[in-house]
Amino acid sequence: VNAEVITIGSELLHGIVRDTNFEMIARMLGEIGVEVAFHTTVGDDSERMGEVFRAAVHRGGAVIATGGLGPTSDDVTRKVIATVFRRRLVLDETVLDRIRARFRARGMEMPPINEGQALVPRGAKVIENERGSAPGLHFAHQQVELFFLPGVPSEAEGMLTQYVIPFLRQKAEGLQIGRRTVRTIGISESLLAERLQALEGEEPAVTFGYLAHPSGVDLHVSAASRDPNWLRGELDRVERKLIEAVGVHAYGTGRQTLSDVVGQALAGRGLRLATAESFTGGAIGVALTATPGSSRYYAGGVVAYSNEAKKELLGVGSDSLRRYGAVSAEVALEMARGARERFGADIAIASTGIAGPDGASEEKPVGLALLALAASDEEAGERHLFGGGRTEIVSRATAVALDLLRRHLGAGIAWSEPSSRS
Amino acid sequence: VNAEVITIGSELLHGIVRDTNFEMIARMLGEIGVEVAFHTTVGDDSERMGEVFRAAVHRGGAVIATGGLGPTSDDVTRKVIATVFRRRLVLDETVLDRIRARFRARGMEMPPINEGQALVPRGAKVIENERGSAPGLHFAHQQVELFFLPGVPSEAEGMLTQYVIPFLRQKAEGLQIGRRTVRTIGISESLLAERLQALEGEEPAVTFGYLAHPSGVDLHVSAASRDPNWLRGELDRVERKLIEAVGVHAYGTGRQTLSDVVGQALAGRGLRLATAESFTGGAIGVALTATPGSSRYYAGGVVAYSNEAKKELLGVGSDSLRRYGAVSAEVALEMARGARERFGADIAIASTGIAGPDGASEEKPVGLALLALAASDEEAGERHLFGGGRTEIVSRATAVALDLLRRHLGAGIAWSEPSSRS
Repeated sequence: VNAEVITIGSELLHGIVRDTNFEMIARMLGEIGVEVAFHTTVGDDSERMGEVFRAAVHRGGAVIATGGLGPTSDDVTRKVIATVFRRRLVLDETVLDRIRARFRARGMEMPPINEGQALVPRGAKVIENERGSAPGLHFAHQQVELFFLPGVPSEAEGMLTQYVIPFLRQKAEGLQIGRRTVRTIGISESLLAERLQALEGEEPAVTFGYLAHPSGVDLHVSAASRDPNWLRGELDRVERKLIEAVGVHAYGTGRQTLSDVVGQALAGRGLRLATAESFTGGAIGVALTATPGSSRYYAGGVVAYSNEAKKELLGVGSDSLRRYGAVSAEVALEMARGARERFGADIAIASTGIAGPDGASEEKPVGLALLALAASDEEAGERHLFGGGRTEIVSRATAVALDLLRRHLGAGIAWSEPSSRS
Repeated sequence: VNAEVITIGSELLHGIVRDTNFEMIARMLGEIGVEVAFHTTVGDDSERMGEVFRAAVHRGGAVIATGGLGPTSDDVTRKVIATVFRRRLVLDETVLDRIRARFRARGMEMPPINEGQALVPRGAKVIENERGSAPGLHFAHQQVELFFLPGVPSEAEGMLTQYVIPFLRQKAEGLQIGRRTVRTIGISESLLAERLQALEGEEPAVTFGYLAHPSGVDLHVSAASRDPNWLRGELDRVERKLIEAVGVHAYGTGRQTLSDVVGQALAGRGLRLATAESFTGGAIGVALTATPGSSRYYAGGVVAYSNEAKKELLGVGSDSLRRYGAVSAEVALEMARGARERFGADIAIASTGIAGPDGASEEKPVGLALLALAASDEEAGERHLFGGGRTEIVSRATAVALDLLRRHLGAGIAWSEPSSRS
């Protein structure tokens, strides 16, 4: 079984908005061994959409399309389906009731414009939308299975998980693609590739891929087989080899984040954490609280953007600010100490730096970051100079701060190179 | 003139690697007024590539394809061109000399495998590659102009700038596409569409598009003309009409963010802002500090995740926490008051709520958010119930908190509906 993914929306053709729906669908299909053969993007234009739908049916794989099911004038998918596949649109009273009920539950009347979302092509199955008003549609044309989902990512995700993926998994009957991800931080993509060159050569059945983020490099491996036991065994083995080769830089697998890894370690040992952030503006707190259950170990933090806030709320000394400046290792450490004390926490981490574009000097350039950690048994600090724009610098500093904490906790998946742990 | 962009490469279909070539080409074409009508991605598979090339010629716009021109076995674009367009491959001695010279310049012999890159489909024009060995190809088939470029982004970029874009600019003969965006918050996509239905009808020369984010709905309008003055005038006029119709919900245009808009208002009046965040975990601070120069008006904030932090760092009363609970309008307001006082700020905004999946009760469900504002002349609060997952709930709450501040400041681009301002 293979598939064509069609994403509908003029904004996707400007090269500015990321096509997150495609990324999500491709990953989900990969997990059940359905190969994506084609991906087509088309604007909100009836004629062009029709042309794309026709070509997809001609190509013959399953078709998953997102977008154009909303209530507004540029949402024309329903009309195009009716024309291309010669299926008259019929008002579905059950769907209409469901849409009305959604609005009622929020204390609102359904706007008349939403009535159009209850129009269903004759003979199509309605895919329920538990997260929004637009229902999905499913029917077969010339033995090609077609699925039409709304463009809102969370709504499309729900229908994929509940309906489309289970349907296609049954069709795929056997061939499976297995994928694993080993997540690393603190080592560059080229160094990583060099370190793994020999290992790659030893594993011809496995495909290797590298993906660099501001927060580190992810290592993707995949293999295909009809034998799920062989597949699992092979990928387990290669994953273990990879983790050993990467060492302390490997912090997690799959979709684990740095925040998940440190959170698990903190919760497991009953430790409380606090943060003190200057130029990261709260990004360390946001990363930590993205992990569900983080209230068990994260007490909170101070975003001390001004010098006054650093003094008043974190007890940073006026002397240190004068002598070393707000962007200094000394102040970073005092911020961490202050947060630890004020929040009554076991450990605190702190950030200060220059995100740019203003505020830089020759001595303290844009991208300079000072991270610090204060605990009862250790105080540590790191100095980094990051490239990239404002957002990227903050992302990198946030990751490094969390990694400083991870290494202090000895957390992660590495079981070699203990000597390089700080 | 419109175009289809074809990106070739199996890795692009896994949903992991970003298609930066497409993004680059789409942006370059937009700048010269060439509309991207279709974007198709296909793997390194001869049959499927052939199918895609045929469909593109049938669709009739210019075709720009990247990838598959390298020297390795999975680079099959040349062979597919030969088959689909019936053009025999001929060894081009000039090209071969150029490739040999490139290697010589680096003190290397050309590996035999690279000889294949000098094979040129009969009658095709060679596009010189100043940054690598694979030359580009250009020819017309059934009056459709086709350009084939290597997949290495820097090499493709060079050929686009030097050759493809100048060629298409001449063809486009002045037709330009103008785009405008009006950004809104606090009104649903369907209500917005209803409100603008009549206006859309009055402007047949303009295309309307709606894009919903967790933080609001963007309204995209575009038009095409050979007369840049007319285009600018028309879009100015329609943008003004839109802003009037949307009213207070219109907060900005183009790429302006809520944070930019409130930042401008705060800086303009010399006001200092502080934040107090519970379940948003620092996201309001991150949004505010994403605007360059935010240190001029943002003093900082407290992320008070625990009750102790709410009491110790923000002075929230134990009484209030007991009586109303941490997730309550009363506590949100006390948090805002506390932050205003501790940071010596003019205005403070605060958030508390349930991001889920834990911590909910019947009375206080997942998605409940309480936002508050404290200033010298006003105190305000809002209660919302948001749908979606943890990240989406936090994004929505962050946007609403900034919008509460925006409306307090009377900032934005609206000049109607002053009565609905809080």
